[in-house]
Amino acid sequence: MMTDRIYVDNSATTKVSGSALEAMIPCFNENYGNPSATYSYGQQAKKILEDSRVSMANSIGAKSTEIFFTSGGTESINWAIYNTCQQKSGKGKHIISTEIEHNAVLKTLEKMQDQGFEITLLRPDRHGQINPEQLDSAIKKDTILISIMMANNVIGTVLDIKSLCAVAHKHRVIFHTDAVQAVGHIPVNVRDLGIDLLSISAHKFHGPKGIGVLFSKIPRIPLPFITGGGQERGVRSGTENVPCIAGMTAALQDEVQNNSKNMIYLSKLRDKLIENILIIPGAYLTGDPLNRLPGHASFVFEGIGHSVYLINMLNDIGICASSGSACSASSKESPHVLKAIGLEEKTAINSLRISLSAYNTEKEIDIIIAKLPEIIGLLRRTGDMRVFV
Amino acid sequence: MMTDRIYVDNSATTKVSGSALEAMIPCFNENYGNPSATYSYGQQAKKILEDSRVSMANSIGAKSTEIFFTSGGTESINWAIYNTCQQKSGKGKHIISTEIEHNAVLKTLEKMQDQGFEITLLRPDRHGQINPEQLDSAIKKDTILISIMMANNVIGTVLDIKSLCAVAHKHRVIFHTDAVQAVGHIPVNVRDLGIDLLSISAHKFHGPKGIGVLFSKIPRIPLPFITGGGQERGVRSGTENVPCIAGMTAALQDEVQNNSKNMIYLSKLRDKLIENILIIPGAYLTGDPLNRLPGHASFVFEGIGHSVYLINMLNDIGICASSGSACSASSKESPHVLKAIGLEEKTAINSLRISLSAYNTEKEIDIIIAKLPEIIGLLRRTGDMRVFV
Repeated sequence: MMTDRIYVDNSATTKVSGSALEAMIPCFNENYGNPSATYSYGQQAKKILEDSRVSMANSIGAKSTEIFFTSGGTESINWAIYNTCQQKSGKGKHIISTEIEHNAVLKTLEKMQDQGFEITLLRPDRHGQINPEQLDSAIKKDTILISIMMANNVIGTVLDIKSLCAVAHKHRVIFHTDAVQAVGHIPVNVRDLGIDLLSISAHKFHGPKGIGVLFSKIPRIPLPFITGGGQERGVRSGTENVPCIAGMTAALQDEVQNNSKNMIYLSKLRDKLIENILIIPGAYLTGDPLNRLPGHASFVFEGIGHSVYLINMLNDIGICASSGSACSASSKESPHVLKAIGLEEKTAINSLRISLSAYNTEKEIDIIIAKLPEIIGLLRRTGDMRVFV
Repeated sequence: MMTDRIYVDNSATTKVSGSALEAMIPCFNENYGNPSATYSYGQQAKKILEDSRVSMANSIGAKSTEIFFTSGGTESINWAIYNTCQQKSGKGKHIISTEIEHNAVLKTLEKMQDQGFEITLLRPDRHGQINPEQLDSAIKKDTILISIMMANNVIGTVLDIKSLCAVAHKHRVIFHTDAVQAVGHIPVNVRDLGIDLLSISAHKFHGPKGIGVLFSKIPRIPLPFITGGGQERGVRSGTENVPCIAGMTAALQDEVQNNSKNMIYLSKLRDKLIENILIIPGAYLTGDPLNRLPGHASFVFEGIGHSVYLINMLNDIGICASSGSACSASSKESPHVLKAIGLEEKTAINSLRISLSAYNTEKEIDIIIAKLPEIIGLLRRTGDMRVFV
């Protein structure tokens, strides 16, 4: 572990919280029974599993029978799309999504396209918002699924899922939302929003990696994507990952309980960051200035050559930030999200994402604010001497 | 935790070892970076990931580029089958497997059958063995995949994978083996065996739940089953589960290092169990008496009504054992494996599986040996008074 490191890449992944770890440890070496076993020891694990299911459901306003545990957000998203395509292909083969989705959605839709489905990707406005009327006019008779993310990973925009979902339901189309960046960060109530399918990833809110949830509204029990022993009421096989489920549950309980407090705290830090970074000439905020994730600040800077230099220089002084999506961090291309909101390639390659968690301090924010202008200045002065490595 | 509990259901799941847990903890709250991130902190996680890959490869005689991390044995098996069906459907649509496979294989093959593939399930002999000549004569011109397990979960039989794989390759057919019950328990060398695809689950050898490996022989890079951010060289998306990967790796390192010692120790305990339990009148060993997993003892008992009573009575005195497969533990039906080896339903429902790990002691074995005859006797005397609950 690097000492005095400032970790501000919480949209990529987060530290597992103390209470999550506390919930997990006994499941590894004490209550390690297989929840499918009938002896009391297996049933103890089963109880942890089912208590977790109830708690996860409560955290998002769902019923426990609507919660299915998966290996993470990506599997949940794959499953949601696969399932709807399987169940509804008799009705039609048209799917609507957006240009700013995570690749977990976009690549899975490409796979469906190869299987004969027709995909329409909506272009967002410059803040990353999708207009409900725009969605309405894209819906066709054979539209079977609409998949729109709740909050964007690259630019922090929080979308108006309630209105978008209402449009879908007006046309009796199933609505899935990738809520990987939202759950644990902003209040999410599936009943209030009206969502049919929702994907969750634990490691974005201080739970462990390798665990997630697919919420599927009753009575829509999803078709199995991973087949085998018939766990999760027959629809998601594989021995239940009780330790990580317990950890995810504890983490989300904390986040839900502290959500109002954390949102105020993080928004304050975020706004201080944004206000001060925008003083740098040629610095621009990306994403929605109002409807954005509490801890998410994202920018582009004119004339710094490429964000890879910026990320490296920040790293050299102990600041862990990213240019956008974690998955494409080492790519030379700009995030597709930035192009979708209308940025030219030469601007989009100069992006910076600072994503906070409640573990971050105001002192850390002050350090970033103090250091960034000088780094940006240096990059601009030496820009012509650089070659992409 | 129940004190003085005797846990002998290690084929269902195992306790996470101390060294596995030690490898995992720092990945949860110190080295928790996203391995896709370019800053040094992400690269530390990346190093743990890639070191683990090398170690996992070494443990099974593979190259590190042949190791793909998954969410467990079930996903690995789903992926192996899905992948081969996708890649080879141009050549043919015939798949050969066996009647004693785990449901992770059987249910996935059923899914493939629904998609137009033809499935042949070989019937094993009474010991659970598949004869290479039997396999040879089942292969057709359009056979694209043979999937045969390395060791059976219900009856402990270790199959002659090397000979079976050789038959497959004589006909240029891809060979997958579900090695979930084998890896970590008996020596497994993919190069020596000649296998194309092999599935591993960590929680069967004192690693954590929710993590596994698909081995895929070079140059056969599998097609993606779970799509998204493009992790695992583009073929298995989702943020890499570094903590559980590190835990699995540490657990397997231990098992491989201590394998000879453990095999001798466990075989001794197993043989003591078998020898003494077979003294009970109407007790029969299931599975291969010679070629069986070191810690695996499985039986059927005449006239005990149903194994559910036996498992419950063992549970009452603190012994955690099972009737067969963990996944179907609460089912009223007998394990399909026991029917496949020729047992009648009335016999097959009276099964007991005792599966040991190196954590078990000879004292525990002595307690089981001492208690079992009296429980079996009691069940036989009260059999007629029981109704299935």
